[in-house]
Amino acid sequence: RPFLALPDNILGWIKFEEKVEEGGERWSKPHVSTLSLHSLFELRTCLQTGTVLLDLDGYSLPQIIDDVIEKQIEDGLLTPDLREKISYVLLRKHRHQTKKPIHRSLADIGKSVSSNTSESLGSNPCLSTICDTQLFTALRKTPKVLSLVALRLKNKFIKKIPKDAEASNVLVGEVEFLEKPFVAFVRLLQATMLGGVTEVPVPTRFLFILLGPAGKAKSYNEIGRAIATLMVDDLFSDVAYKARNREDLIAGIDEFLDEVIVLPPGEWDPNIRIEPPKKVPSAEKRKSIFSLNEVGQMNGMAGGAGAGGGGGGSDDGEMPEAHEVGEELAWTGRFCGGLYLDIKRKLPWFMSDFYEGFHIQSISAILFIYLGCITNAITFGGLLGDATDNYQGVMESFLGTAMAGSMFCLFAGQPLIILSSTGPILIFEKLLFDFSKGNGIDYMEFRLWIGLHSALQCLILVATDASFIIKYVTRFTEEGFSTLISFIFIYDAIKKMIGAFNYYPINSDFKPDYVTMYKCECVAPDPANVTLFNASAPVAPNTTNVSLYNAINLTALDWTQLSKKECLKYGGNLVGKSCKFVPDLALMSFILFFGTYSTTLTLKKFKFSRYFPTKVRAFIADFSNVFSILLFCGVDACFGLDTPKLHIPTIIKPTRVDRGWFVFPFGKNPWWVYLASALPALLVTILIFMDQQITAVIVNRKEHKLRKAAGYHLDLFWVGILMAICSFMGLPWYVAATVISIAHIDSLKMETETSAPGEQPQFLGVREQRVTGIIVFVLTGISVFLAPILKYIPMPVLYGVFLYMGVASLNGIQFWDRCKLFLMPAKHQPDYVFLRHVPLRRIHLFTLVQIACLSILWILKSTVAAIIFPVMILALILVRRLLDFVFSQHDLAWIDNIIPEKEKKKEDDKKKKRKGNKGDSSSDEEFPPPSVIKIPMDPLPAQPRNGGAHCLSRK
Amino acid sequence: RPFLALPDNILGWIKFEEKVEEGGERWSKPHVSTLSLHSLFELRTCLQTGTVLLDLDGYSLPQIIDDVIEKQIEDGLLTPDLREKISYVLLRKHRHQTKKPIHRSLADIGKSVSSNTSESLGSNPCLSTICDTQLFTALRKTPKVLSLVALRLKNKFIKKIPKDAEASNVLVGEVEFLEKPFVAFVRLLQATMLGGVTEVPVPTRFLFILLGPAGKAKSYNEIGRAIATLMVDDLFSDVAYKARNREDLIAGIDEFLDEVIVLPPGEWDPNIRIEPPKKVPSAEKRKSIFSLNEVGQMNGMAGGAGAGGGGGGSDDGEMPEAHEVGEELAWTGRFCGGLYLDIKRKLPWFMSDFYEGFHIQSISAILFIYLGCITNAITFGGLLGDATDNYQGVMESFLGTAMAGSMFCLFAGQPLIILSSTGPILIFEKLLFDFSKGNGIDYMEFRLWIGLHSALQCLILVATDASFIIKYVTRFTEEGFSTLISFIFIYDAIKKMIGAFNYYPINSDFKPDYVTMYKCECVAPDPANVTLFNASAPVAPNTTNVSLYNAINLTALDWTQLSKKECLKYGGNLVGKSCKFVPDLALMSFILFFGTYSTTLTLKKFKFSRYFPTKVRAFIADFSNVFSILLFCGVDACFGLDTPKLHIPTIIKPTRVDRGWFVFPFGKNPWWVYLASALPALLVTILIFMDQQITAVIVNRKEHKLRKAAGYHLDLFWVGILMAICSFMGLPWYVAATVISIAHIDSLKMETETSAPGEQPQFLGVREQRVTGIIVFVLTGISVFLAPILKYIPMPVLYGVFLYMGVASLNGIQFWDRCKLFLMPAKHQPDYVFLRHVPLRRIHLFTLVQIACLSILWILKSTVAAIIFPVMILALILVRRLLDFVFSQHDLAWIDNIIPEKEKKKEDDKKKKRKGNKGDSSSDEEFPPPSVIKIPMDPLPAQPRNGGAHCLSRK
Repeated sequence: RPFLALPDNILGWIKFEEKVEEGGERWSKPHVSTLSLHSLFELRTCLQTGTVLLDLDGYSLPQIIDDVIEKQIEDGLLTPDLREKISYVLLRKHRHQTKKPIHRSLADIGKSVSSNTSESLGSNPCLSTICDTQLFTALRKTPKVLSLVALRLKNKFIKKIPKDAEASNVLVGEVEFLEKPFVAFVRLLQATMLGGVTEVPVPTRFLFILLGPAGKAKSYNEIGRAIATLMVDDLFSDVAYKARNREDLIAGIDEFLDEVIVLPPGEWDPNIRIEPPKKVPSAEKRKSIFSLNEVGQMNGMAGGAGAGGGGGGSDDGEMPEAHEVGEELAWTGRFCGGLYLDIKRKLPWFMSDFYEGFHIQSISAILFIYLGCITNAITFGGLLGDATDNYQGVMESFLGTAMAGSMFCLFAGQPLIILSSTGPILIFEKLLFDFSKGNGIDYMEFRLWIGLHSALQCLILVATDASFIIKYVTRFTEEGFSTLISFIFIYDAIKKMIGAFNYYPINSDFKPDYVTMYKCECVAPDPANVTLFNASAPVAPNTTNVSLYNAINLTALDWTQLSKKECLKYGGNLVGKSCKFVPDLALMSFILFFGTYSTTLTLKKFKFSRYFPTKVRAFIADFSNVFSILLFCGVDACFGLDTPKLHIPTIIKPTRVDRGWFVFPFGKNPWWVYLASALPALLVTILIFMDQQITAVIVNRKEHKLRKAAGYHLDLFWVGILMAICSFMGLPWYVAATVISIAHIDSLKMETETSAPGEQPQFLGVREQRVTGIIVFVLTGISVFLAPILKYIPMPVLYGVFLYMGVASLNGIQFWDRCKLFLMPAKHQPDYVFLRHVPLRRIHLFTLVQIACLSILWILKSTVAAIIFPVMILALILVRRLLDFVFSQHDLAWIDNIIPEKEKKKEDDKKKKRKGNKGDSSSDEEFPPPSVIKIPMDPLPAQPRNGGAHCLSRK
Repeated sequence: RPFLALPDNILGWIKFEEKVEEGGERWSKPHVSTLSLHSLFELRTCLQTGTVLLDLDGYSLPQIIDDVIEKQIEDGLLTPDLREKISYVLLRKHRHQTKKPIHRSLADIGKSVSSNTSESLGSNPCLSTICDTQLFTALRKTPKVLSLVALRLKNKFIKKIPKDAEASNVLVGEVEFLEKPFVAFVRLLQATMLGGVTEVPVPTRFLFILLGPAGKAKSYNEIGRAIATLMVDDLFSDVAYKARNREDLIAGIDEFLDEVIVLPPGEWDPNIRIEPPKKVPSAEKRKSIFSLNEVGQMNGMAGGAGAGGGGGGSDDGEMPEAHEVGEELAWTGRFCGGLYLDIKRKLPWFMSDFYEGFHIQSISAILFIYLGCITNAITFGGLLGDATDNYQGVMESFLGTAMAGSMFCLFAGQPLIILSSTGPILIFEKLLFDFSKGNGIDYMEFRLWIGLHSALQCLILVATDASFIIKYVTRFTEEGFSTLISFIFIYDAIKKMIGAFNYYPINSDFKPDYVTMYKCECVAPDPANVTLFNASAPVAPNTTNVSLYNAINLTALDWTQLSKKECLKYGGNLVGKSCKFVPDLALMSFILFFGTYSTTLTLKKFKFSRYFPTKVRAFIADFSNVFSILLFCGVDACFGLDTPKLHIPTIIKPTRVDRGWFVFPFGKNPWWVYLASALPALLVTILIFMDQQITAVIVNRKEHKLRKAAGYHLDLFWVGILMAICSFMGLPWYVAATVISIAHIDSLKMETETSAPGEQPQFLGVREQRVTGIIVFVLTGISVFLAPILKYIPMPVLYGVFLYMGVASLNGIQFWDRCKLFLMPAKHQPDYVFLRHVPLRRIHLFTLVQIACLSILWILKSTVAAIIFPVMILALILVRRLLDFVFSQHDLAWIDNIIPEKEKKKEDDKKKKRKGNKGDSSSDEEFPPPSVIKIPMDPLPAQPRNGGAHCLSRK
């Protein structure tokens, strides 16, 4: 078999190179093609000397090859007697592959190769005769196409290829009968299916053939890799599609060569397969650079040099994009202008807000946020109950959350925001209740009027577009605020956990052997003390009952049969070593708490592990919280311990019997209270405004890539309306909850699914819709009926979820990243872009200022001053203003944002400067001059051997 | 100030590029220099046209610059009127820097830059006049030098530079008065200190100066980077040192260009700083390739293409190194030949074995292994005590471990091996004891004779060099064995943990409110049952005492004051709900167990985090086990719970009163027992031989890079001797413990400390010494006196350490890596070298065979057949032999090793083949033909613009 053509070296490109590993059964991981400079120059020569057929009308491989051979003979490149042989080699190969589809035959090849190697080494025909024809396939993904088809679902590979992709086939090999290489580059007039040449049924548009004399297979192989890499290059493939003649192609190669990145051989091992980068330069950017400075200097900017010389083009040297809060916060100057624009902006999305919500990911988001919400509702409900003597309790908290949340998610401008009770409001209610009680004012009525005034003030703020001041909230304020809220979450979660250790004290002195010494008995009160007991009786609730018991059967009581509570109720004494201890519960709570937290964290990270297919991993990561909650509910159920569980009221009725579901506005307080309540209302308004709008800024961050725009005015409008409603119904007030909202967004993030092998999935945006929010709050509302299920959820598990939420919301906060820099030696710091531009000392100073501000806020928060906490956020904006005098605008632009007005002035400055500097090469990279840089050296006359020195310098 | 020369773009090279970030205060992370092809060609032109002064006798910068200018004027490259100006620019710069050392002035520059940017933009002199002189420093690290000096300890940077390093200074800038560039490359006759040009006081040998017309700063910058990168390249710097003329330098650049690795611009963003690779190609290898095939084709092998074409040079395409067990296992054929060679081999290292042990790392190793050893001693001691009715107990276990271990570490061939009791021995003892008891044979005497026979057999094996058969233990057997042992460790640790839950049952039904219902009272036995109690009394120990009590004050006893044990002893009944439960201890044990394990794991990983300087991280990682043990001992102490603690006997005396410290060999058993015991001894010998030698193979693995060679025969000799001693003293028998030995090695691993910035620390080897082992066993011996300290260590913490040891010893086992491949989709699999060469299907098949073998072994281990477990390892070798018929030698070479004899035959085959194939280009990569590949294309006549195509093809 003299012409056996075993493709022993199959490579493929979609965007990155993939190689069929030795043995032929396995495609390697996609990697960046590392070429040799040599092969690129050889390829250039090939195209200069070989046959170039553009827009050939080909319908089958034999015909195309015939045409190519014909052309070669015509041009005198090939003697006619070789026609048959070449055609035979090229088509033999073809025939070999049409017999079975390649992906089947790969396995066979693998077998034959491995059996060859071990058994029939001597008789391998490749060793004695010609062979070694390689096949490359380069697929060009046309940039516009994003909709993909799964032609054959069985073959997963095909899913990654766009519908209108066209293949470039590269056939390379060595034959014995040729004296000089046979080279052809063919562009077909139309993409044609050439049978089994490509592994996947993609039509072929380009064909590169290189057959050469024997002995240089390796070199041909490299040339083949070079052309395949070129064909998947966005710019070169454009050239290839549009080329009118050979010269265009060669110019294309030269352009490519101008741009290539060179690694010194001593610093890099060519055997390392380079993983595809997170982000590759887009064709548009590369193109625009090309048109900007013709000489193609921009490739030299590698390694950060772009920051220095002042040459234009590299985004590395430019200022970061300005702080954009979007047109949503522009001041319209018209009555309700902002609100009108918000509605106008959001209305077209209203329908899609519903149908876009139906996605598997939503289920995870709903469960996660639902559990967060009810935990919050229970916690705040309990605390409010304590603070207001049960005027507002858990029941009110649930109803209010459900009502306000679902209304907000249904109608507000940013339905990704989750409403909740917040700390400052709780403190306000507490102070208000104490004040009312102390001054004989009816709490509920007073509160109603404050709520109404505050709602009115909110509406005034809406009508006057007052939210525009939020644009002064830069990263400094925004991140400070969200860090603080995250810390409060973490602190609360840990505090609750430590609380469990106090609530269920552990008996440290317990010796298993002395179990007989431990008991707790209820002992009847000393008859002498009964009077004492009676005296203290009125304090206990249900006093009448106790007296009754007391009178009737206090002595007849079987004290030993009483439970701890009953014993204390009837005035018994608990005697024994084990009375004040509760076994196991504290430690079990800790295991559940910490287990839930760390399992969620671990499962979330599982996305980046190597195990299981991407889809499975994404599923596990998306549902990590659900899995870990279920797991630890299961653990808890297995042990069957009486850990504190989630207890939800089962009947809808006000927590206090002496209040109804409607608060009547008049009658209980003197008239001046109705007016005076405007004053405390002002505080509430500031409180609500700051909480709501800063959270909205965080949610609407540019990084989240929201498509459907924000609605700051509309949000505030609904918060105001809901406030009025809640006040009338005697429910707590609600405002945006930062941490839960961030968790909501995180659980709805979308990434690209279909991309070329090796390309990193790109963050696409957030699933913006109203469905998850609405369902969460409807579920919260009907939790009353879900109580039998929910009672299996231990509270420590929920605190673990809280801890996770707090920690997770710290991620991606630049301030937090900067804090971590303190602990890292400069050499180990990650390559943050701001580190390339701002001196570390300045960064640390900025971070320290932020830490100081937050520490002060934290201390304030821990005192009664917590009520003015939101006002303090305003102070943060002021501090940020003062920093303008300490830091340069350049530094601030990188580590913070520039405050809006300044920016305008600066832009003018910039324009002015630019005019002045034209043509200068300044060392000041802030204002890169658009000077075109030319090759500085005068070319020497080309010498035969050293001609390469200026082969790239085009005019 | 018309000539202000602010170095705004300072870069440095030691091996990798470092850049002073914008603001001038921070050196970036070292990264691979990504150059533009353009700048390399421009540099080439520069060297062609500029002044090249080789071996200039320079002593100061002004003099050197004068000489250069003189030469330029001489050559007609410079008009004499510019002399002053150029000299001024270059020296002005110099003067600026001699005033303050650069690393001080960096801060100042930073200040001036940042203040410039924000305030005095208009007045920045750089914008209107000339400036922008850059300074590069490339340090050439001469490859031989490894001893480094810390010239100025304050400046950490200096420590990384070898003593005889010489700097290359690159001065680049633009000036307005020049029409064409001023280029000079100077090599000084001797390295000279040129004042403050370099940041660190390193003498300068090379100087590259490029001053050019204004407007092309960026381009000059790139050229500067190119020459600096070249100067740190091992091959080019050799050329630069040896060059006789300009042409040599240009040839050096061409060689470099031939080797460069090219990344396509569309697949890589040049702004990404590439982290230095783990391993760079060594200069020697690159050089040898060069001399092998002159054309420099080897650079094209990137991306695995080397595996295909059959061109020589790439190690990728070669077979892995053969299974080397070293000369230690060669069969000498002489009596005690192996033993003699072992002693001869190890004796020269004997002294260094002691002084090399004094290192901070040893402390961590000692503590870690000590805790492992005493846990093992306690565990096995306890089990042996149960098995042999306390003939051998904890005390014997401690004494034996201490004696055997320290003797072994002092005299054996491989002192890194840690001796311990092992599972099979334990089972053997148990069976032996039962057999003796059942047949009326004296156990201790019988055991002594078995030990003596076995010791004799071991010595015979030593004398006959029988250990050579260990070379048939390939990776298959070795990894199977160590995986199994690791699993047994993990299994035992978890079993012990679960045991705690059984030992301290948790009261699941406990309701905190009903604490009054829980008690456990000791109730006096029913008088009717007293007789029953008396009947059962003899079973309990101290019967006489009880009877005494019984007679005297059984009725007078205050039953409620008795502890659980006492109560049961006196026949009382425990009544109450809490009797069979122990609160908190189980959960606390779990927290301690799991906490110790996961903290150790986390701290170990901390080495690879970004926080803290490398030294601190290495310290934390090295001492991770100590830290986590201390932490959780602390946690345990805080809670003060009665968790099970490490209890060590405090007096040295045999566990049973009826045995002494010496077993007399005669008198208790009939004479034929002395002879018959040779038969069971054979089993013990096989058991010991396999355990000992396979562990030795694992310890002596090539990956551990041991310098001091192994001593298989010497090891076995000492094991035999110790066996005899232990038998006489009635102590347990000892043999190498796989997992603890691996842990010992892991805790003694050394890595390079001083390397060029950015170079990855290399694993150097293991701190081979006898100190750690000896101290560990001496400590074990005196643990009896350490009991008051050791009693604070809870057992669950030690089980956690065990779990960690088991899991850690799975790391780096290829078999385990292959098991994990089952769960990974092909695209996500790591780039293991065997994956590039062996089809995945074959790998999986091989792994499955191994899993099947291990499962069978595991099942055997769980039955009584465990006693023949070591014999089964022999079966594994047989299975491996059979695999030769299933897998090709090629595949086995990659995923296992080739069995020795085969190898020899194969080598012959290879030689034969090679002869036959000479000159062929075969597709069979196993036998790469040494054919020299030449440029295949006929060069076209050079065209002015396209001359680059063959500019690299040298004859």
